[in-house]
Amino acid sequence: MTIGIIGLGLIGGSMAIDLKNALDTIRLVGYDANEHHRTKALALGLVDHVVENPEALSACHVIILAIPVNHIPAVAVHMLDVCSDNTIILDAGSTKGALCKAIAQHPKRKNVVAAHPIAGTENSGPEAALAKLFAGKTNIICEKEKSSAEALQQALLIFDTLGMHTIYMDAEEHDKHVAYVSHLSHVSSFLLGLTVLDIEKDEKNIATLAGSGFASTVRLAKSSPDMWAPIFEQNMEYLSQALQEYIIHLQRFQYHLLKRDRTELHKTMQEANAIRRILQGIENKNQK
Amino acid sequence: MTIGIIGLGLIGGSMAIDLKNALDTIRLVGYDANEHHRTKALALGLVDHVVENPEALSACHVIILAIPVNHIPAVAVHMLDVCSDNTIILDAGSTKGALCKAIAQHPKRKNVVAAHPIAGTENSGPEAALAKLFAGKTNIICEKEKSSAEALQQALLIFDTLGMHTIYMDAEEHDKHVAYVSHLSHVSSFLLGLTVLDIEKDEKNIATLAGSGFASTVRLAKSSPDMWAPIFEQNMEYLSQALQEYIIHLQRFQYHLLKRDRTELHKTMQEANAIRRILQGIENKNQK
Repeated sequence: MTIGIIGLGLIGGSMAIDLKNALDTIRLVGYDANEHHRTKALALGLVDHVVENPEALSACHVIILAIPVNHIPAVAVHMLDVCSDNTIILDAGSTKGALCKAIAQHPKRKNVVAAHPIAGTENSGPEAALAKLFAGKTNIICEKEKSSAEALQQALLIFDTLGMHTIYMDAEEHDKHVAYVSHLSHVSSFLLGLTVLDIEKDEKNIATLAGSGFASTVRLAKSSPDMWAPIFEQNMEYLSQALQEYIIHLQRFQYHLLKRDRTELHKTMQEANAIRRILQGIENKNQK
Repeated sequence: MTIGIIGLGLIGGSMAIDLKNALDTIRLVGYDANEHHRTKALALGLVDHVVENPEALSACHVIILAIPVNHIPAVAVHMLDVCSDNTIILDAGSTKGALCKAIAQHPKRKNVVAAHPIAGTENSGPEAALAKLFAGKTNIICEKEKSSAEALQQALLIFDTLGMHTIYMDAEEHDKHVAYVSHLSHVSSFLLGLTVLDIEKDEKNIATLAGSGFASTVRLAKSSPDMWAPIFEQNMEYLSQALQEYIIHLQRFQYHLLKRDRTELHKTMQEANAIRRILQGIENKNQK
């Protein structure tokens, strides 16, 4: 089986490592719009071959789109146009509404599996690729009923090989949920980082006081703007709702703070402590 | 040498473990207003003895105050009143302005060293005490010039034994800096947790999508309200400034988001990426 990977960064590269290690008989062919990424991915042995244009992948059995979400809808449509009737196309994008809309009327819609394997690090590029990045994590497939049985079977073979647990969801429901549990935490981290960088201009050496708690909270501010700007833009409607709720919570806290209302501050934090339950769930998942 | 520890939770307990392991000849006597903490600390072997009132520590050579910051100023004044002229008093509070103001006119001011050893976890109580919690971390001493040479020497012996690197700072400067690099990240985390808990009421199973990025950003939301409500209240002026700046940054981001202005979103995140430098500094410190 030949698998084509479009996008040889953290996600595409990490998938390549695990697929190659697990499946002896597959051949991995890669494409990336960035020439440096192509050269690097080949040098690192992430893929067996690279090609210089995506059309050269048209005969692959499966094509995985691991590119920024703003490119996924158009590339998915283009690849459907140029590929054989049997080529299965998967994606790994963090938003699903735009892709599902773009391919909705395509005669080969059933060859696409709209997926979101939830895994990543704050690093990017082929050098950031890691073995077992996906193991034990959750994968989401949207609009399952619009993919053919064969396409779903191929997709599950791949996600199962990566060690993922697949669940199914409506595309809009997916986009709303990830706005809250993934996109918002990136926004909160980026802006916390910026706030501290700003004050540092006036208060030299302020960073010497930063400890491991700060490091944990701000870690996602290292994430790639090339990847995240398109995600935020594409998920604008749900993310702006989530962000608005977050700002309202912060402003209410600010109000209690200005009044030095320790009782209300305490109550708010005690409510937030219930997050332990969700964190425990994440830990259990990662230990599986 | 006899060291008295008032407050047998995460901080007092962790100090006790390291001091006991390092200094053969000391005797550790503990007090905690919470009877359960006293019993537990003794059962865990954190201290050699416990006493039932803080006055019973008046003959100690050194007394460490490891209690919530709202109690520190009054307890410091009280212990100065009841202790011998030679007893040195240290504290471990996250705010320093209120303590320094409360003891400023006390005839035995020179016996106090106002300190902030920057270390902790999101857990609390004697059971949360850890060996080496302070090793390699930064300790801040404020108003050094108002402590006697002997008091400073005793304090440094203790903080050096814990493996800390001590720096000196003005109390107001300290409170402003920690508002940005510590207190604000706790607030951002508590309210992020609350935002997600809120939406979860309407969107069942949303938490199944949360991954390690969310876990990292929201980890501090597990922190103790009993510890943090008094810190926030005491550092209200600087924390409310920091929080206001954070909210303004979030609102500006929200504005660019609503306009789907990918260029501005990208620019903002790219600026935030400079946080890598500060994070690298924290990592280097923790590896020392």
